[in-house]
Amino acid sequence: MKIEKRWIVSFIIISLAAITGLLWQHEPASGDVFNTEDSINFADVAWLLTASCLVLLMTPGLSFFYGGMVGKKNVISTMLKSFICLGVISLLWVVVGFSLSFGDSIGIVIDGKTYGIIGNPLQFAFFDQVETKPHQVLGSSIPFILYALFQMKFAIITPAIITGALAERIRFISFLLFICLFTLVIYTPLCHMIWHPNGLLGSYFGVKDFAGGTVVHMSAGFAALAGVIVLGKRKNSEHIPTNIPFVLLGTGMLWFGWFGFNAGSALAANATAAMAFATTTVASASAMLTWVFFDRLNGRKVSALGACIGAVVGLVVITPSAGFVSIPQSMFFGFIGAIVSNKMVYWKKLKQIDDTLDVFACHGVGGIMGMILTAIFAQGENASLLHGGISVFGHHMMALVLVSFFTFGGSYLLFKLTNIIIPIRVSEESESMGLDLSQHGEKF
Amino acid sequence: MKIEKRWIVSFIIISLAAITGLLWQHEPASGDVFNTEDSINFADVAWLLTASCLVLLMTPGLSFFYGGMVGKKNVISTMLKSFICLGVISLLWVVVGFSLSFGDSIGIVIDGKTYGIIGNPLQFAFFDQVETKPHQVLGSSIPFILYALFQMKFAIITPAIITGALAERIRFISFLLFICLFTLVIYTPLCHMIWHPNGLLGSYFGVKDFAGGTVVHMSAGFAALAGVIVLGKRKNSEHIPTNIPFVLLGTGMLWFGWFGFNAGSALAANATAAMAFATTTVASASAMLTWVFFDRLNGRKVSALGACIGAVVGLVVITPSAGFVSIPQSMFFGFIGAIVSNKMVYWKKLKQIDDTLDVFACHGVGGIMGMILTAIFAQGENASLLHGGISVFGHHMMALVLVSFFTFGGSYLLFKLTNIIIPIRVSEESESMGLDLSQHGEKF
Amino acid sequence: MKIEKRWIVSFIIISLAAITGLLWQHEPASGDVFNTEDSINFADVAWLLTASCLVLLMTPGLSFFYGGMVGKKNVISTMLKSFICLGVISLLWVVVGFSLSFGDSIGIVIDGKTYGIIGNPLQFAFFDQVETKPHQVLGSSIPFILYALFQMKFAIITPAIITGALAERIRFISFLLFICLFTLVIYTPLCHMIWHPNGLLGSYFGVKDFAGGTVVHMSAGFAALAGVIVLGKRKNSEHIPTNIPFVLLGTGMLWFGWFGFNAGSALAANATAAMAFATTTVASASAMLTWVFFDRLNGRKVSALGACIGAVVGLVVITPSAGFVSIPQSMFFGFIGAIVSNKMVYWKKLKQIDDTLDVFACHGVGGIMGMILTAIFAQGENASLLHGGISVFGHHMMALVLVSFFTFGGSYLLFKLTNIIIPIRVSEESESMGLDLSQHGEKF
Repeated sequence: MKIEKRWIVSFIIISLAAITGLLWQHEPASGDVFNTEDSINFADVAWLLTASCLVLLMTPGLSFFYGGMVGKKNVISTMLKSFICLGVISLLWVVVGFSLSFGDSIGIVIDGKTYGIIGNPLQFAFFDQVETKPHQVLGSSIPFILYALFQMKFAIITPAIITGALAERIRFISFLLFICLFTLVIYTPLCHMIWHPNGLLGSYFGVKDFAGGTVVHMSAGFAALAGVIVLGKRKNSEHIPTNIPFVLLGTGMLWFGWFGFNAGSALAANATAAMAFATTTVASASAMLTWVFFDRLNGRKVSALGACIGAVVGLVVITPSAGFVSIPQSMFFGFIGAIVSNKMVYWKKLKQIDDTLDVFACHGVGGIMGMILTAIFAQGENASLLHGGISVFGHHMMALVLVSFFTFGGSYLLFKLTNIIIPIRVSEESESMGLDLSQHGEKF
Repeated sequence: MKIEKRWIVSFIIISLAAITGLLWQHEPASGDVFNTEDSINFADVAWLLTASCLVLLMTPGLSFFYGGMVGKKNVISTMLKSFICLGVISLLWVVVGFSLSFGDSIGIVIDGKTYGIIGNPLQFAFFDQVETKPHQVLGSSIPFILYALFQMKFAIITPAIITGALAERIRFISFLLFICLFTLVIYTPLCHMIWHPNGLLGSYFGVKDFAGGTVVHMSAGFAALAGVIVLGKRKNSEHIPTNIPFVLLGTGMLWFGWFGFNAGSALAANATAAMAFATTTVASASAMLTWVFFDRLNGRKVSALGACIGAVVGLVVITPSAGFVSIPQSMFFGFIGAIVSNKMVYWKKLKQIDDTLDVFACHGVGGIMGMILTAIFAQGENASLLHGGISVFGHHMMALVLVSFFTFGGSYLLFKLTNIIIPIRVSEESESMGLDLSQHGEKF
Repeated sequence: MKIEKRWIVSFIIISLAAITGLLWQHEPASGDVFNTEDSINFADVAWLLTASCLVLLMTPGLSFFYGGMVGKKNVISTMLKSFICLGVISLLWVVVGFSLSFGDSIGIVIDGKTYGIIGNPLQFAFFDQVETKPHQVLGSSIPFILYALFQMKFAIITPAIITGALAERIRFISFLLFICLFTLVIYTPLCHMIWHPNGLLGSYFGVKDFAGGTVVHMSAGFAALAGVIVLGKRKNSEHIPTNIPFVLLGTGMLWFGWFGFNAGSALAANATAAMAFATTTVASASAMLTWVFFDRLNGRKVSALGACIGAVVGLVVITPSAGFVSIPQSMFFGFIGAIVSNKMVYWKKLKQIDDTLDVFACHGVGGIMGMILTAIFAQGENASLLHGGISVFGHHMMALVLVSFFTFGGSYLLFKLTNIIIPIRVSEESESMGLDLSQHGEKF
């Protein structure tokens, strides 16, 4: 078998990263932005270690959630695309991703204050300064390394979510290239703009995103939409899920992991974490039931697949405000989110473009719903529409439009660019053979 | 497809719950039964968050444990019935279940003291007062919301356990109705009577139940028995487990989750939690080995299925006394529990009534064994037969009889009632087609 | 079916253990080696409870990792052999294993100081003294029972790892006998020599093994090699993995659990745990990518199987130094480890002896690589070759040779001994029928 140049380049890149790692002169935490180790709260460490484990498990969980839904000839290739993100994005995060997300702000100056668009790429390169001392602002009670790890898991799951839309036709190596570009150009700036203390969207627009409804789910949803448009429809988009138990397993793992995602985002083992845990549970339960009942009202059978998708949509919708709303409100979040996403999943126009596993309808629309609902319901003085914050609501809506344009447009361009470098669609022959066999020589 | 009225009613109920949630005027924690947030122990929070996650995973775990054992045409429907409990019971718990279980006691007065039979249903309705402040008695070092969540997972798993007995013939919507009734009429009073500080069985009869051997397993086991009698035998009860690896996976998940169940029941990250963890591990290991060796002595092959069922029986048996006995004793618990349940599983009479997955033999009998062994061995002055507590032992045995009658008789009536409202057995045609296809339009 | 005597003996042994447990006069923690319970750090307890749960899940994880790779007729038997270790080794650990590993040193005297080769078998028999008080040296901030439990999980996973090499031809009962012998004769002394404060390899040779690269992986790898040689090749060693998604699931579970393994080995919820977590993540990510790219360069397709094996090899390689190296270094560990193990997997000589699932190439060689790299890179004054510790490096290499001889030679003799007591290879007929059906009467 002839080895294409792109694989040689891939191997050279990983070799360079590893050898650079070996020779890297690690720079210790310095300056007055770090606390001493005395300020570590060990209970918070215990919970954040756990939460990071839980979020890691979401990616294999997603493998099964998606892998069980696709056709028999594409199960493994679909799973592998989620799974490989654990490899690619982890390394990218260490080398430069974390710096881009949480390094000192590079951005625009408004009224003499800098609002960050992206972080300084060199600041934490190869995890310089990222060690045991807690950062004063970013997770001030836990070692900075743990903060960086927890955030790493979010960066990993985001491109993994996208895979569902592109299943059954995208080339593996092109996918790897795209997720690198996506992480560098879309995810890290968005993360910086929303979660860095000086980020443009968070500190200027006042966008609230407790656990990644916007950063993770909206961005993945819009990227999925863009990808589908660039890729085009499958030759054969008839769709019989291969293994529903896998979908159930994936959903269980996702749900389990999501507690780390949402309750971990309190960055402490405190009452906020417990509240976020509760809203997450309830929204998901509510969305699951709403989805299956709503399916039935629309003449479809109650299905395990519906219960699973509903549960995940509930998790998506509550994510941006998991720590900001009350338990009964979270029940409503799940209910309304499920109905809207259900409508979108069965919307003809969207079916036509062939988003294989409805990533846009679930994560994109779910993320949008979550962002809107957060802007309506989040508790706190002037925090949202219902709490005297009309202007906050307006800003949120502006941010919603900006984020949509940025993530969709940016991803579209990146898919086009990827396509120029390495064609992103497999050959017709490979597609009809199935990607498992044609790309990986494996069979389910 | 014509939409039956019951589905419209279902959707109306979930809509009402969600909208009520939206409009609900949340009542904050009040009165002198709550501590301030200062009294929160963050290490306990870290562990209880984790334990709650673990117990959540038991329900998908049960899906696989049961789903792998049934016939090929009923895998998904069996799994879904466990899984849907996460939706139904979570919401029911928020709306009224938690109040019924842990609200102020409504009960009978004996010697001027009220012994609770059920909790005040309005007290914590829609999680009123259930928020960040710790309750003085119920989990005094963790936010009350976290206590309510941890208990929620127990309420979810109980009806999920029942599903194994009813598999391959129960109608989905009838099952939903039954589990609501069961939770309201059987589970919550039992939970109140045993675990509420003023509960009749706990405080008057002195029943000890560390982590739910009686509340969860005995009640599920007897409900399963009642259900099987009402439902009748399957048309075809030949029984070839479809997917043993799923059973292994489910067992692994259950075992993993059970540590949250048992060690979490210490309600703190303390030495008792560690002891409960240890007894749980050892009882399960002992029961697993005993089961496979005992199988072999009885002329059966050593099987993965046997190892799995044995392990789960060991977990059941140790549950009520996980924090009350020594490690070597727990080895005996697993040993004797496995032998008794193994005998029951192969007991002809029980085979004849067709408890599909031996729920009564494993959970019912396992729960009974655990309750008896607890009354014999629990440590502490006068705590059990071997520690000078003859009267305690007597009370336990009376309680055992009471609980058996209550859970069996009550469940029997509820199944009959359900059957009147919506026939609980699917049509013969549906049964022979398999529930996956006939009820859910899905196929494994 | 005639019941062979060996099964009767097995049942008698478990009965004796259980009844002895019942009658055992538990000896409480005594002497001045225990702290009072006041010295328990509850945050550490929370994390170690969690970590112990995580490590437990590795064994079912391994079931799936291995089970998915073998042929269709041996899936269940392969899984069960991992799984049963949870039963056998747990009990053995309680009865005597923990004493042998961590009891007071019995060994050789050098310069007036005793260097332990094995622990006093009676000291903690039936977990005497193993209770809530923390040991002053072994996990001084957590209950001793929790320390014993955490270590138990390591003892369980080690023989479970070996199973992969012996798959498709070893007799079940012989395997049970072997793992008991292995644990008593190889694992516990090795564990004592490396991890007990007075252990020969740890305190005299200065061997560093953060989380079991030597104790767990090297020993399992060499035992696997010995087993393969004694067992001989399979009749039919054509090798089509039955279920790649199972392998992915197993890898996800192993990775998830490994965080408990490595970050838990800090024995505290502290900064070291966070660092170990980070190096573990990064080494694994790096090895996963390196493996798939290296496969491709060698003319093989990028495969899910390769990604999984790569990830696991990365985890193995980083294990001995997870808490001792920097993040960028861990990237190199994964890189170089993956290349070496990959070369070994495809090495003709090794293929010829038919190590079914490449246990030696992955765990044995991975463990060796980890031990060497640790001796080169571990941080701290004179801690390794690159930090001024030439003699430390030399000692490490000597220890490597000693451990290799001990684990390989010892295991070889134990396999031979087992073979004399009960033939370890199934009949030809059973082998061609597949072990699932012939040994367990089950079918995947």
